[in-house]
Amino acid sequence: MPTELSPAPLAEAITAQHTFRNAMAQLAAAVHVVTTDGRGGKAGFAASAVCSVTDSPPTLLVCLNRGSSAWQATTENARVCINTLSAGQQAVSALFGGKTAMTERFAGVEWLERAGKAPALAGAAMSIDCRIVNATTVGSHDVLFCEVDEIIDNQAGSSLLYFNRQYHSL
Amino acid sequence: MPTELSPAPLAEAITAQHTFRNAMAQLAAAVHVVTTDGRGGKAGFAASAVCSVTDSPPTLLVCLNRGSSAWQATTENARVCINTLSAGQQAVSALFGGKTAMTERFAGVEWLERAGKAPALAGAAMSIDCRIVNATTVGSHDVLFCEVDEIIDNQAGSSLLYFNRQYHSL
Repeated sequence: MPTELSPAPLAEAITAQHTFRNAMAQLAAAVHVVTTDGRGGKAGFAASAVCSVTDSPPTLLVCLNRGSSAWQATTENARVCINTLSAGQQAVSALFGGKTAMTERFAGVEWLERAGKAPALAGAAMSIDCRIVNATTVGSHDVLFCEVDEIIDNQAGSSLLYFNRQYHSL
Repeated sequence: MPTELSPAPLAEAITAQHTFRNAMAQLAAAVHVVTTDGRGGKAGFAASAVCSVTDSPPTLLVCLNRGSSAWQATTENARVCINTLSAGQQAVSALFGGKTAMTERFAGVEWLERAGKAPALAGAAMSIDCRIVNATTVGSHDVLFCEVDEIIDNQAGSSLLYFNRQYHSL
Protein backbone atom coordinates (compact mmCIF):
# COMPACT_ATOMS: atom_id res chain seq x y z
CA MET A 1 0.00 0.00 0.00
CA PRO A 2 1.50 3.38 -0.93
CA THR A 3 2.32 5.68 1.94
CA GLU A 4 0.12 8.75 1.93
CA LEU A 5 1.01 12.02 3.56
CA SER A 6 -1.84 12.82 5.95
CA PRO A 7 -3.16 16.43 5.89
CA ALA A 8 -1.91 17.33 9.38
CA PRO A 9 1.87 16.83 8.78
CA LEU A 10 1.53 18.52 5.36
CA ALA A 11 -0.09 21.60 6.94
CA GLU A 12 2.63 21.62 9.60
CA ALA A 13 5.35 21.45 6.95
CA ILE A 14 3.80 24.37 5.03
CA THR A 15 3.55 26.45 8.24
CA ALA A 16 7.19 25.63 9.06
CA GLN A 17 8.29 26.66 5.55
CA HIS A 18 6.32 29.92 5.80
CA THR A 19 7.81 30.76 9.22
CA PHE A 20 11.29 29.87 7.96
CA ARG A 21 10.97 32.06 4.84
CA ASN A 22 9.84 35.04 6.92
CA ALA A 23 12.80 34.54 9.24
CA MET A 24 15.27 34.19 6.37
CA ALA A 25 14.00 37.48 4.91
CA GLN A 26 15.56 39.05 8.02
CA LEU A 27 18.94 37.51 7.31
CA ALA A 28 20.69 40.38 5.51
CA ALA A 29 23.04 39.20 2.78
CA ALA A 30 25.20 40.44 -0.06
CA VAL A 31 23.85 39.74 -3.54
CA HIS A 32 25.83 37.92 -6.23
CA VAL A 33 25.31 36.96 -9.84
CA VAL A 34 26.94 33.59 -10.45
CA THR A 35 27.79 32.84 -14.09
CA THR A 36 29.05 29.77 -15.90
CA ASP A 37 30.16 28.95 -19.44
CA GLY A 38 31.50 25.86 -21.17
CA ARG A 39 30.28 22.62 -22.75
CA GLY A 40 27.15 22.69 -20.59
CA GLY A 41 26.20 26.11 -21.99
CA LYS A 42 26.20 29.65 -20.69
CA ALA A 43 24.01 30.42 -17.69
CA GLY A 44 23.75 32.63 -14.65
CA PHE A 45 21.68 33.10 -11.52
CA ALA A 46 21.31 35.56 -8.65
CA ALA A 47 22.33 34.22 -5.25
CA SER A 48 22.47 35.51 -1.71
CA ALA A 49 23.35 32.16 -0.12
CA VAL A 50 27.07 32.50 -0.77
CA CYS A 51 29.75 32.47 1.89
CA SER A 52 33.44 32.09 2.55
CA VAL A 53 34.36 28.65 3.90
CA THR A 54 38.12 28.47 4.35
CA ASP A 55 41.32 30.15 3.12
CA SER A 56 43.24 26.88 2.94
CA PRO A 57 42.59 26.32 0.12
CA PRO A 58 40.60 29.52 -0.68
CA THR A 59 37.02 28.24 -0.99
CA LEU A 60 33.50 29.68 -1.07
CA LEU A 61 30.18 27.91 -1.13
CA VAL A 62 27.11 28.70 -3.20
CA CYS A 63 23.63 27.24 -2.62
CA LEU A 64 21.75 26.52 -5.85
CA ASN A 65 18.20 25.26 -6.22
CA ARG A 66 18.25 21.99 -8.20
CA GLY A 67 15.16 23.26 -10.01
CA SER A 68 16.95 26.41 -11.24
CA SER A 69 17.23 26.94 -14.99
CA ALA A 70 20.98 27.43 -14.41
CA TRP A 71 21.52 24.16 -12.52
CA GLN A 72 22.33 21.88 -15.48
CA ALA A 73 24.92 24.19 -17.07
CA THR A 74 26.51 25.11 -13.74
CA THR A 75 27.00 21.55 -12.55
CA GLU A 76 28.12 20.28 -15.98
CA ASN A 77 30.69 23.06 -16.50
CA ALA A 78 31.85 22.78 -12.88
CA ARG A 79 33.23 26.31 -13.20
CA VAL A 80 31.64 29.54 -12.03
CA CYS A 81 32.40 33.22 -11.73
CA ILE A 82 30.91 34.65 -8.52
CA ASN A 83 30.20 38.35 -9.16
CA THR A 84 29.54 40.24 -5.92
CA LEU A 85 27.25 43.15 -6.74
CA SER A 86 28.14 46.71 -5.82
CA ALA A 87 25.66 49.39 -4.74
CA GLY A 88 23.25 50.28 -7.53
CA GLN A 89 23.33 46.93 -9.35
CA GLN A 90 19.88 45.77 -8.23
CA ALA A 91 18.64 45.68 -11.85
CA VAL A 92 21.21 42.96 -12.64
CA SER A 93 20.07 40.99 -9.59
CA ALA A 94 16.42 41.26 -10.66
CA LEU A 95 17.31 40.15 -14.20
CA PHE A 96 19.16 37.04 -12.97
CA GLY A 97 16.73 36.26 -10.15
CA GLY A 98 13.54 36.13 -12.20
CA LYS A 99 12.09 34.04 -15.00
CA THR A 100 13.89 35.88 -17.81
CA ALA A 101 15.27 33.61 -20.55
CA MET A 102 18.99 32.93 -20.24
CA THR A 103 20.00 34.74 -23.47
CA GLU A 104 18.08 37.88 -22.42
CA ARG A 105 19.75 37.87 -18.99
CA PHE A 106 23.16 38.29 -20.57
CA ALA A 107 22.06 40.67 -23.34
CA GLY A 108 21.25 43.75 -21.29
CA VAL A 109 24.40 43.92 -19.18
CA GLU A 110 28.09 44.64 -19.87
CA TRP A 111 30.50 41.72 -19.38
CA LEU A 112 34.19 41.03 -19.55
CA GLU A 113 34.35 38.03 -21.89
CA ARG A 114 37.44 35.93 -21.25
CA ALA A 115 38.39 32.85 -23.26
CA GLY A 116 37.70 29.64 -21.36
CA LYS A 117 36.16 31.44 -18.39
CA ALA A 118 32.67 32.38 -17.25
CA PRO A 119 31.68 36.00 -17.99
CA ALA A 120 32.73 38.56 -15.36
CA LEU A 121 30.23 41.32 -14.65
CA ALA A 122 31.47 44.86 -15.39
CA GLY A 123 31.17 47.09 -12.34
CA ALA A 124 30.80 44.26 -9.83
CA ALA A 125 32.52 44.78 -6.48
CA MET A 126 34.57 41.68 -7.34
CA SER A 127 34.50 38.68 -9.66
CA ILE A 128 35.80 35.38 -8.33
CA ASP A 129 36.67 32.55 -10.75
CA CYS A 130 36.21 29.14 -9.19
CA ARG A 131 36.20 25.43 -9.89
CA ILE A 132 33.38 23.46 -8.27
CA VAL A 133 35.37 20.80 -6.42
CA ASN A 134 32.56 19.18 -4.45
CA ALA A 135 28.81 19.37 -3.90
CA THR A 136 26.31 18.21 -1.28
CA THR A 137 22.57 17.92 -1.83
CA VAL A 138 20.37 19.23 1.01
CA GLY A 139 16.64 18.99 0.29
CA SER A 140 15.80 21.15 -2.74
CA HIS A 141 19.30 22.62 -3.06
CA ASP A 142 22.87 21.72 -3.93
CA VAL A 143 25.64 23.29 -1.88
CA LEU A 144 28.50 23.86 -4.32
CA PHE A 145 32.02 24.08 -2.89
CA CYS A 146 33.99 26.44 -5.12
CA GLU A 147 37.79 26.63 -5.01
CA VAL A 148 39.18 29.98 -6.08
CA ASP A 149 41.41 30.31 -9.17
CA GLU A 150 41.49 34.06 -9.63
CA ILE A 151 39.98 37.19 -8.12
CA ILE A 152 39.23 40.40 -10.02
CA ASP A 153 38.95 42.99 -7.27
CA ASN A 154 37.35 46.21 -8.55
CA GLN A 155 37.73 47.97 -5.16
CA ALA A 156 34.13 49.19 -5.39
CA GLY A 157 34.00 49.95 -1.67
CA SER A 158 30.24 49.39 -1.73
CA SER A 159 27.90 46.43 -1.56
CA LEU A 160 24.36 45.61 -2.63
CA LEU A 161 22.40 43.91 0.13
CA TYR A 162 19.05 42.15 0.34
CA PHE A 163 17.20 42.49 3.65
CA ASN A 164 13.50 42.46 4.57
CA ARG A 165 12.63 41.70 0.93
CA GLN A 166 14.23 44.95 -0.28
CA TYR A 167 17.56 46.02 -1.73
CA HIS A 168 19.86 48.22 0.34
CA SER A 169 23.26 49.74 -0.32
CA LEU A 170 26.20 49.83 2.04
CA MET B 1 61.96 10.10 1.04
CA PRO B 2 59.61 12.58 2.67
CA THR B 3 57.99 15.11 0.36
CA GLU B 4 59.11 18.65 1.12
CA LEU B 5 57.12 21.73 0.28
CA SER B 6 59.47 23.93 -1.77
CA PRO B 7 59.49 27.67 -0.90
CA ALA B 8 57.85 28.79 -4.17
CA PRO B 9 54.50 26.95 -3.77
CA LEU B 10 54.40 27.93 -0.08
CA ALA B 11 54.86 31.62 -0.93
CA GLU B 12 52.17 31.28 -3.61
CA ALA B 13 49.76 29.71 -1.13
CA ILE B 14 50.35 32.52 1.37
CA THR B 15 49.80 35.16 -1.34
CA ALA B 16 46.59 33.38 -2.41
CA GLN B 17 45.34 33.32 1.20
CA HIS B 18 46.13 37.01 1.63
CA THR B 19 44.34 37.97 -1.60
CA PHE B 20 41.38 35.79 -0.64
CA ARG B 21 41.08 37.30 2.85
CA ASN B 22 41.12 40.83 1.42
CA ALA B 23 38.39 39.86 -1.04
CA MET B 24 36.28 38.19 1.64
CA ALA B 25 36.46 41.37 3.73
CA GLN B 26 34.37 42.92 0.95
CA LEU B 27 31.69 40.26 1.24
CA ALA B 28 29.17 42.01 3.49
CA ALA B 29 27.42 39.62 5.87
CA ALA B 30 25.07 39.54 8.82
CA VAL B 31 26.68 38.65 12.14
CA HIS B 32 25.49 35.81 14.37
CA VAL B 33 26.41 34.40 17.75
CA VAL B 34 25.97 30.63 17.65
CA THR B 35 25.52 28.96 21.05
CA THR B 36 25.38 25.36 22.19
CA ASP B 37 24.71 23.58 25.47
CA GLY B 38 24.50 19.94 26.54
CA ARG B 39 26.74 17.02 27.48
CA GLY B 40 29.62 18.52 25.50
CA GLY B 41 29.44 21.72 27.55
CA LYS B 42 28.26 25.26 26.97
CA ALA B 43 29.99 27.26 24.24
CA GLY B 44 29.42 29.97 21.68
CA PHE B 45 31.13 31.68 18.77
CA ALA B 46 30.60 34.63 16.44
CA ALA B 47 29.95 33.70 12.82
CA SER B 48 29.30 35.53 9.59
CA ALA B 49 29.49 32.45 7.36
CA VAL B 50 25.88 31.44 7.93
CA CYS B 51 23.27 31.06 5.23
CA SER B 52 19.90 29.64 4.39
CA VAL B 53 20.10 26.40 2.38
CA THR B 54 16.57 25.10 1.78
CA ASP B 55 13.05 25.38 3.21
CA SER B 56 12.31 21.69 2.68
CA PRO B 57 13.19 20.86 5.38
CA PRO B 58 14.06 24.33 6.83
CA THR B 59 17.86 24.23 7.02
CA LEU B 60 20.73 26.69 7.48
CA LEU B 61 24.44 26.11 7.32
CA VAL B 62 27.16 27.43 9.59
CA CYS B 63 30.90 27.32 8.85
CA LEU B 64 33.01 26.64 11.94
CA ASN B 65 36.80 26.55 12.18
CA ARG B 66 37.87 23.13 13.49
CA GLY B 67 40.43 24.95 15.63
CA SER B 68 37.76 27.06 17.36
CA SER B 69 37.44 26.74 21.15
CA ALA B 70 33.73 26.10 20.55
CA TRP B 71 34.22 23.25 18.06
CA GLN B 72 34.28 20.32 20.49
CA ALA B 73 31.13 21.30 22.41
CA THR B 74 29.23 22.28 19.27
CA THR B 75 29.87 19.05 17.40
CA GLU B 76 29.33 16.85 20.48
CA ASN B 77 26.03 18.51 21.44
CA ALA B 78 24.90 18.58 17.80
CA ARG B 79 22.47 21.33 18.74
CA VAL B 80 22.87 25.07 18.27
CA CYS B 81 20.97 28.28 18.66
CA ILE B 82 21.81 30.70 15.83
CA ASN B 83 21.32 34.22 17.19
CA THR B 84 21.21 36.82 14.39
CA LEU B 85 22.47 40.10 15.84
CA SER B 86 20.45 43.30 15.58
CA ALA B 87 21.90 46.78 15.12
CA GLY B 88 23.97 47.85 18.11
CA GLN B 89 25.03 44.37 19.25
CA GLN B 90 28.64 44.64 18.04
CA ALA B 91 29.96 44.26 21.61
CA VAL B 92 28.44 40.77 21.78
CA SER B 93 30.04 39.89 18.44
CA ALA B 94 33.45 41.10 19.65
CA LEU B 95 33.07 39.12 22.90
CA PHE B 96 32.29 35.88 21.03
CA GLY B 97 34.74 36.47 18.20
CA GLY B 98 37.87 36.99 20.27
CA LYS B 99 40.02 34.97 22.65
CA THR B 100 37.81 35.57 25.71
CA ALA B 101 37.33 32.49 27.94
CA MET B 102 34.01 30.72 27.37
CA THR B 103 32.57 31.46 30.84
CA GLU B 104 33.35 35.18 30.49
CA ARG B 105 31.67 35.29 27.07
CA PHE B 106 28.35 34.26 28.59
CA ALA B 107 28.70 36.30 31.81
CA GLY B 108 28.42 39.80 30.39
CA VAL B 109 25.30 39.36 28.27
CA GLU B 110 21.60 38.69 28.97
CA TRP B 111 20.26 35.30 27.87
CA LEU B 112 16.99 33.43 27.76
CA GLU B 113 17.90 30.16 29.47
CA ARG B 114 15.64 27.33 28.35
CA ALA B 115 15.79 23.78 29.70
CA GLY B 116 17.41 21.40 27.23
CA LYS B 117 18.21 24.13 24.72
CA ALA B 118 21.15 26.37 23.88
CA PRO B 119 20.95 29.89 25.34
CA ALA B 120 19.05 32.41 23.23
CA LEU B 121 20.49 35.93 23.15
CA ALA B 122 18.19 38.67 24.50
CA GLY B 123 17.66 41.42 21.95
CA ALA B 124 18.84 39.39 18.96
CA ALA B 125 16.94 39.94 15.71
CA MET B 126 16.04 36.26 15.89
CA SER B 127 17.15 33.05 17.59
CA ILE B 128 16.95 29.83 15.61
CA ASP B 129 17.11 26.47 17.42
CA CYS B 130 18.60 23.76 15.26
CA ARG B 131 19.83 20.18 15.23
CA ILE B 132 23.09 19.58 13.35
CA VAL B 133 22.00 16.82 10.97
CA ASN B 134 25.12 16.62 8.81
CA ALA B 135 28.60 18.11 8.43
CA THR B 136 31.24 18.35 5.72
CA THR B 137 34.90 19.17 6.31
CA VAL B 138 36.45 21.66 3.86
CA GLY B 139 40.08 22.51 4.63
CA SER B 140 40.27 24.18 8.05
CA HIS B 141 36.50 24.36 8.54
CA ASP B 142 33.44 22.20 9.11
CA VAL B 143 30.25 23.15 7.31
CA LEU B 144 27.44 22.28 9.72
CA PHE B 145 24.01 21.63 8.25
CA CYS B 146 21.44 22.75 10.81
CA GLU B 147 17.79 21.71 10.62
CA VAL B 148 15.43 24.17 12.28
CA ASP B 149 13.31 23.16 15.29
CA GLU B 150 12.02 26.52 16.46
CA ILE B 151 12.39 30.21 15.63
CA ILE B 152 12.14 33.05 18.14
CA ASP B 153 11.46 36.07 15.95
CA ASN B 154 11.97 39.31 17.86
CA GLN B 155 10.95 41.47 14.86
CA ALA B 156 13.96 43.73 15.44
CA GLY B 157 13.72 45.19 11.94
CA SER B 158 17.46 45.89 12.01
CA SER B 159 20.63 43.92 11.36
CA LEU B 160 24.27 44.11 12.37
CA LEU B 161 26.59 43.69 9.39
CA TYR B 162 30.32 43.18 8.96
CA PHE B 163 31.85 44.73 5.84
CA ASN B 164 35.32 46.08 5.04
CA ARG B 165 36.50 44.95 8.51
CA GLN B 166 33.98 47.21 10.27
CA TYR B 167 30.54 46.85 11.78
CA HIS B 168 27.59 48.54 10.10
CA SER B 169 23.90 48.73 10.93
CA LEU B 170 21.02 48.32 8.54
